[in-house]
Amino acid sequence: MAKEVTNISDNYAQWYNDLVVKAGLAENSAVRGCMVIKPYGYAIWEKIQAALDKMFKDTGHVNAYFPLFIPKSFLSREAEHVEGFAKECAVVTHHRLMSSPDGKGVVVDPQAKLEEELIVRPTSETIIWSTYKNWIQSYRDLPILVNQWANVVRWEMRTRLFLRTAEFLWQEGHTAHATREEAIEETEKMIGVYADFAENFLALPVLVGKKTASERFAGAEDTYCIEALMQDGKALQAGTSHFLGQNFAKAFDVQYVSKEGKQEYVWATSWGVSTRLMGALIMAHSDNSGLVLPPKLAPLQVVIVPIYKGAEELTAISVRANEIKRQLEALGITAKYDDRDNVRSGFKFAEYELKGVPVRLAIGPRDMQNGTVEVARRDTLQKQLLPQENIASCVASLLNEIQENIFVKAKTFRAENTFEVNTYDEFKQQIEKGGFVVAHWDGTPETEEKIKEETKATIRCIPRDGKQEAGRCIVTGKPSAQRVVFARSY
Amino acid sequence: MAKEVTNISDNYAQWYNDLVVKAGLAENSAVRGCMVIKPYGYAIWEKIQAALDKMFKDTGHVNAYFPLFIPKSFLSREAEHVEGFAKECAVVTHHRLMSSPDGKGVVVDPQAKLEEELIVRPTSETIIWSTYKNWIQSYRDLPILVNQWANVVRWEMRTRLFLRTAEFLWQEGHTAHATREEAIEETEKMIGVYADFAENFLALPVLVGKKTASERFAGAEDTYCIEALMQDGKALQAGTSHFLGQNFAKAFDVQYVSKEGKQEYVWATSWGVSTRLMGALIMAHSDNSGLVLPPKLAPLQVVIVPIYKGAEELTAISVRANEIKRQLEALGITAKYDDRDNVRSGFKFAEYELKGVPVRLAIGPRDMQNGTVEVARRDTLQKQLLPQENIASCVASLLNEIQENIFVKAKTFRAENTFEVNTYDEFKQQIEKGGFVVAHWDGTPETEEKIKEETKATIRCIPRDGKQEAGRCIVTGKPSAQRVVFARSY
Repeated sequence: MAKEVTNISDNYAQWYNDLVVKAGLAENSAVRGCMVIKPYGYAIWEKIQAALDKMFKDTGHVNAYFPLFIPKSFLSREAEHVEGFAKECAVVTHHRLMSSPDGKGVVVDPQAKLEEELIVRPTSETIIWSTYKNWIQSYRDLPILVNQWANVVRWEMRTRLFLRTAEFLWQEGHTAHATREEAIEETEKMIGVYADFAENFLALPVLVGKKTASERFAGAEDTYCIEALMQDGKALQAGTSHFLGQNFAKAFDVQYVSKEGKQEYVWATSWGVSTRLMGALIMAHSDNSGLVLPPKLAPLQVVIVPIYKGAEELTAISVRANEIKRQLEALGITAKYDDRDNVRSGFKFAEYELKGVPVRLAIGPRDMQNGTVEVARRDTLQKQLLPQENIASCVASLLNEIQENIFVKAKTFRAENTFEVNTYDEFKQQIEKGGFVVAHWDGTPETEEKIKEETKATIRCIPRDGKQEAGRCIVTGKPSAQRVVFARSY
Repeated sequence: MAKEVTNISDNYAQWYNDLVVKAGLAENSAVRGCMVIKPYGYAIWEKIQAALDKMFKDTGHVNAYFPLFIPKSFLSREAEHVEGFAKECAVVTHHRLMSSPDGKGVVVDPQAKLEEELIVRPTSETIIWSTYKNWIQSYRDLPILVNQWANVVRWEMRTRLFLRTAEFLWQEGHTAHATREEAIEETEKMIGVYADFAENFLALPVLVGKKTASERFAGAEDTYCIEALMQDGKALQAGTSHFLGQNFAKAFDVQYVSKEGKQEYVWATSWGVSTRLMGALIMAHSDNSGLVLPPKLAPLQVVIVPIYKGAEELTAISVRANEIKRQLEALGITAKYDDRDNVRSGFKFAEYELKGVPVRLAIGPRDMQNGTVEVARRDTLQKQLLPQENIASCVASLLNEIQENIFVKAKTFRAENTFEVNTYDEFKQQIEKGGFVVAHWDGTPETEEKIKEETKATIRCIPRDGKQEAGRCIVTGKPSAQRVVFARSY
């Protein structure tokens, strides 16, 4: 099976697509740009959802659900929002089909034209702020800390499974606050939640920082982001958190009466991550044998494979294997015993490597004699013999070790692929080779645009924890107080 | 607060709408027919989802996700499906907006017309079976036991919060099997899961049965349903499970190679429940004071309210109340201590009654002296004094008792409102008064249609567990082997 996956060094993009399809994560559908998320892929997404949802609730948020459709006129209420954003989208113009006059199939009923077109939500700020207007009268109604799990549609021309699809799944938090300070605090808190999630669940080291003005979300005063580095040296934006100021409150006239009895506009944030995280997860850790999944997000954490000849050997091994399975499950580990008799164990090994199952146990007749089990870890592909006694707690520790190791490996990769440069020539050379390129920039959109045009690199972020260091812009030589991070990106 | 809810006897429909809005469950949005599910309503839906999802997984199903859009041509592939169904739906015709030539707002870009219109899914049989074609080659690929949690759109003309909305949330199971028998078994298993869920979580007694041919899902060979009785004597269909035969397999050419090496068409089922269940839950149990929620689905199960004068009393009570809260939480009970000082306790009592919180504890200075707590249950509105000692385990038992009592009460109501009739005159009189009316029917669509036209009653189901009993159709006098259940319905 794994043989069919393109070599990562030959063609990274094809390797990625092969993995997604052959590991059974997702595939293209009959609808242009829309994917089918297959059960194995969706099971990972469910784990991502569960972990994030708990983090949101632990930080005081609740879930709600807002309409799929947005009246066209709403999109133009916030000028920057519509300018920078909502042009490529799915437009609903009619609400009925009718039998075709020729009797073959159905056609759109011209009588059923909507008075105002509806847009399938590309993001929900407008419909949500039109709703918040009714929810907010007084400072007592604030803050509103709401999240929504939903599908959204952006009519992308070039699509790639998980990374860029016309329809995708995401969560979008939309909060309303009495003060600027509180809204900024929320924006920063949520980018922190994303960074925490990325590092502790996805095992993905991320840079936390702010976007430059030209890379901001349309309608935001500030956009915070987490940026990760993929194995091909390209950056991937893995999550954003926006401080929206009073822009949407003003566009939808959302005011509250303060403690002091004054009418004030409400302050807003929004923040989101999407099924794009699946792409990041796959691209950051996987290899030529297939997926490498962090144990915390692996739908199946341990597989047990019997190595046997004949029914008698299998029976004895099955008893032991099922015992071990139960011991693992008692520790909260997801385990499966695969005793299929229509495929060989070598085939099973390759299949579970392709699927990224973190630990594989194999038990053969010699193990039955010696009380041992062969333990293979997916991240390093190393094997060792361990005693069957206490195997469950050994595997539990090993899963933690694997989670940690995948993170450390990705962090080392990032460190080895982060380069400080001091001249534009150095910059151009390095950008060709990939990685995060850290350089001084004069802070102007003009220089940023010039660099982008000439090198295809964008400023991924102004790092939150970057050291203050006086320097000179690599392009203009003008002064700069802090290096920023450039890369080519997904 | 509760005062503002219309009396249930005065206007049931208005009572229902008041409850949904004033208890903070849902509200209408700016988009015609689409609702906003507010945090409290969504929290109940999340509990419904979690319980059902576990039941689906325990019966071997996995989740996946299929596109929101369906190419128009797909809908006409299965003739009955399109005939009986997919006419009132949201049609996407364009994929881009552009700035309006007059500079005000945005208009649809006429250049961006889709070659083939896309339909926002009203249900997903067609897009899913077009996908299954690629997943199924051999009997080894079967069964496929997939469920999807999703939003769907049906352009309803008259809408009511939760009961009938243009967009709603649901789950749809779509399974594929090698044999007719296995597919029928699945269809029956899943209607059993729904009945189990309705009775054990929603505390809603349901009739399990089959729909008549004219009430079947468009494209199904058999539709099983669960039917519940609301307090106004109208029936509500709470879930359906369809045996689809080979209809969709033939429409999308999905064949497999059997063990014997023969090409065979695949057998299908689909089954779903939706946010309509929220409507059933509300209408079945609630009263003039507000919602009555079964403890298993209540987002907040216990609220503790301090009764005090002055800060000193409050401090002492707060210590005790927080202890009790922790004891409750240790038993897995969701509890809140409400020490807001800007509203009076009477206001709080009314608010939690409106919201249907199953148990309210009140602690005052006398309770502090006597070591007691006032325990009020929402279902009966009865109060009793109980010792603070061991209060958590008493409350745990009480929650079970309330869950059971709500179910028994609904079951008694249904028994008292189920009527066997033997003549069409009796039938017409009874239908006017409401309830399930159980009568003999000759099995013809003509008689069914006549009854529907003359009385607005439909056959809700042919009960699965109905006794076999020879009789004569109340309209035509023709022989009948079993009574069927009629009602007016939502």
